[in-house]
Amino acid sequence: MPAALPHIVILGGGFGGLSAARALAGAPARITLVDRHNHHLFQPLLYQVATAGLSAPSIAAPLRQILRHQRNVTVLMDEVTGIDLAQRRVQLTRERLDYDWLLVATGAAHAYFGHDDWAGNAPGLKSLDDALAIRRRVLTAFERAEQEDDPARRQAWLNLVVVGGGATGVELAGTLAEIARHTLTGEFRRAQPRDANILLVEAGPRVLPAFDPVLSAKAQRQLEHLGVQVRLGHAVTAVDDDGVTLGGERIAARTVLWAAGVAASPLGRQLDAPLDRAGRVLVQPDLGLPGHSEVFVLGDLASVQQDGSPVPGVAPAAKQMGEHVGRLIAARLRGDTRVLPFRYRDAGSLATIGRMAAVAQFGRLRFSGLLAWWVWLGAHIWFLIGFRNRLVVLLDWAMAYWTQARHARIITGADRHGRER
Amino acid sequence: MPAALPHIVILGGGFGGLSAARALAGAPARITLVDRHNHHLFQPLLYQVATAGLSAPSIAAPLRQILRHQRNVTVLMDEVTGIDLAQRRVQLTRERLDYDWLLVATGAAHAYFGHDDWAGNAPGLKSLDDALAIRRRVLTAFERAEQEDDPARRQAWLNLVVVGGGATGVELAGTLAEIARHTLTGEFRRAQPRDANILLVEAGPRVLPAFDPVLSAKAQRQLEHLGVQVRLGHAVTAVDDDGVTLGGERIAARTVLWAAGVAASPLGRQLDAPLDRAGRVLVQPDLGLPGHSEVFVLGDLASVQQDGSPVPGVAPAAKQMGEHVGRLIAARLRGDTRVLPFRYRDAGSLATIGRMAAVAQFGRLRFSGLLAWWVWLGAHIWFLIGFRNRLVVLLDWAMAYWTQARHARIITGADRHGRER
Repeated sequence: MPAALPHIVILGGGFGGLSAARALAGAPARITLVDRHNHHLFQPLLYQVATAGLSAPSIAAPLRQILRHQRNVTVLMDEVTGIDLAQRRVQLTRERLDYDWLLVATGAAHAYFGHDDWAGNAPGLKSLDDALAIRRRVLTAFERAEQEDDPARRQAWLNLVVVGGGATGVELAGTLAEIARHTLTGEFRRAQPRDANILLVEAGPRVLPAFDPVLSAKAQRQLEHLGVQVRLGHAVTAVDDDGVTLGGERIAARTVLWAAGVAASPLGRQLDAPLDRAGRVLVQPDLGLPGHSEVFVLGDLASVQQDGSPVPGVAPAAKQMGEHVGRLIAARLRGDTRVLPFRYRDAGSLATIGRMAAVAQFGRLRFSGLLAWWVWLGAHIWFLIGFRNRLVVLLDWAMAYWTQARHARIITGADRHGRER
Repeated sequence: MPAALPHIVILGGGFGGLSAARALAGAPARITLVDRHNHHLFQPLLYQVATAGLSAPSIAAPLRQILRHQRNVTVLMDEVTGIDLAQRRVQLTRERLDYDWLLVATGAAHAYFGHDDWAGNAPGLKSLDDALAIRRRVLTAFERAEQEDDPARRQAWLNLVVVGGGATGVELAGTLAEIARHTLTGEFRRAQPRDANILLVEAGPRVLPAFDPVLSAKAQRQLEHLGVQVRLGHAVTAVDDDGVTLGGERIAARTVLWAAGVAASPLGRQLDAPLDRAGRVLVQPDLGLPGHSEVFVLGDLASVQQDGSPVPGVAPAAKQMGEHVGRLIAARLRGDTRVLPFRYRDAGSLATIGRMAAVAQFGRLRFSGLLAWWVWLGAHIWFLIGFRNRLVVLLDWAMAYWTQARHARIITGADRHGRER
């Protein structure tokens, strides 16, 4: 491939970056896709890895395997250490890239609201390593309870707190309740997993705030039916080794999982552009960076308003942004300089609440319960397209459904934070 | 369960310890099974996890799930810190156990022949964590090669050395050659995975020394056909960050895997009994500890002679020893005090050498090639019994066979030794 072809650098191999690369298939350009992981991750099912329902490789595939036939793409596993907009250069750990076009799609993590020291005791769920760390903590908590004689200390191992009532928090809490009530039944001789308390803490007035209030109420009832205690209007004011504090109340819990807030990738701060409160870059209507028509920001790192409300930070939006920018650059390369504003098409929202319960919202249509769960299951298996894992995922789920077992209940690795569990 | 029942403590949930526990189903006793992992591991397929063919949960299952219906067993995830034979006590990290019968089945690891400092640069393959660490190193090596401009340094990333020509070493080397020649084809733009050199180093005169010399020769030819360089009669004299030394020869290699030697579990040294050179306990014909008829040693930790040759340290032998000791104790509990010597029944040996090649030895019958591979495949899927994973494993292999892809090519976790990869 002649070096004279324009060089498009894409930072991030998530839904945004990967769909941009794919939309540029066949374009007369050299594309370099950089990600610090070697894999694309199907993030909507990450909570299933964290709760031992799926194995890590079932929801991830190597980026270079996905893109092997797209000969204009080079994949690099590396981290970005700096962006020089004036020189049009990106510095990686191991090399430097000069670009003609730059796409920044490095996503977002959870926000600890100024308390980053909580991260060690309350891990978030964004990467496979996060999911495996959470799986290790949750499974180890029940093991420790089995060996703890003191009733109060035992209960602290059986108290699991999930902070944040969005889709991830609801999915985690619902699945943890199922594990305690069903999966582990009969496996312990001293502790009783059904004595576990799963607590879902949300600072706002309802769970699933992105959904219709009617569905929020239904989701809460489904969670409570599974045995989850839902605490609304409570903000966490402290997290430490032994538990959490909610205002004046202290809850002893050795396992706290964090699913609250959004903190955009720190790379946004290097783009010399206004940011919103979560650190997202306020982009132009075509997703371009203000003052730099050769730079685009997409996915969870981009802050985009549409019809007076923000485009949500969800996988379909990131995917659509990637397709938009990919097509836009392909058009520019053909000499077509029209400005095409990005339009988000809401394909509907789904959230699952444990086994056979979910809520769904498609335009004006809202439904919940078993039907919503089947739609959720079908949609997620469908969107695992591009992975060869669909059949294995389906099998895992079919087995989990019939046997109530969870096949990935394996404790591996040491705790990142070196804490004695 | 009344506390007056005799207490049988089993240390180790591998093939030996688990089969002993199962053989004691229904026995009038309290059984406590201790393992530092929460899972039983199907070790014969561990190399498949290390080489990204299978996911970790496909070859492991929680011990308490396997034993959930056996009500006389309590499973503890803990580590043994001491054994007091006189007081009949085992000290764990978190509690102390008094026993009436003790079964020690804590297995063996690889031996670095007095060079334990090599472990950081040449990881062995005994646990799931080991396998995931090797997977991370191997996959990362190709990623680093893609970003290395200097030809010599790039080649050092593409040189992979496997030390030890036993079954594990042969399986690793054969699979690595397939990954380089087939799996990764077309996925890299700068480095060429087919430039990888896979080197298998064995100090002895042939690979697979436990097999018939004819099969050793066939295995070597099959390895060479796959592109593996086999070096016989070469002992490794040094391992460091940049490679290995074989006597006078220096080989630059950033990835070295260790599959040589046997070092029995250090618990053997606490048993106040003679040990063999590998640290295995020299037991009585019934697997009892000399001078302690209430203590048994089984699996890879036991050194047993039969008809003038040692019982091999393989999974079927450990399983048979567990069944023997379990039945023996069950008989004693019924008042039957006959001494039953252990007899190993050799069900045959199999080793695989990459895709569709293997060697097999059943009594006087010896064969190799495709037929041996099919027998190997069938036997291993069959012996995954007790795992619900057989179907998933079969699917993974069927997919890998047709597509030459490997579905678990996911890099997770940081390197245990903190080395910059």
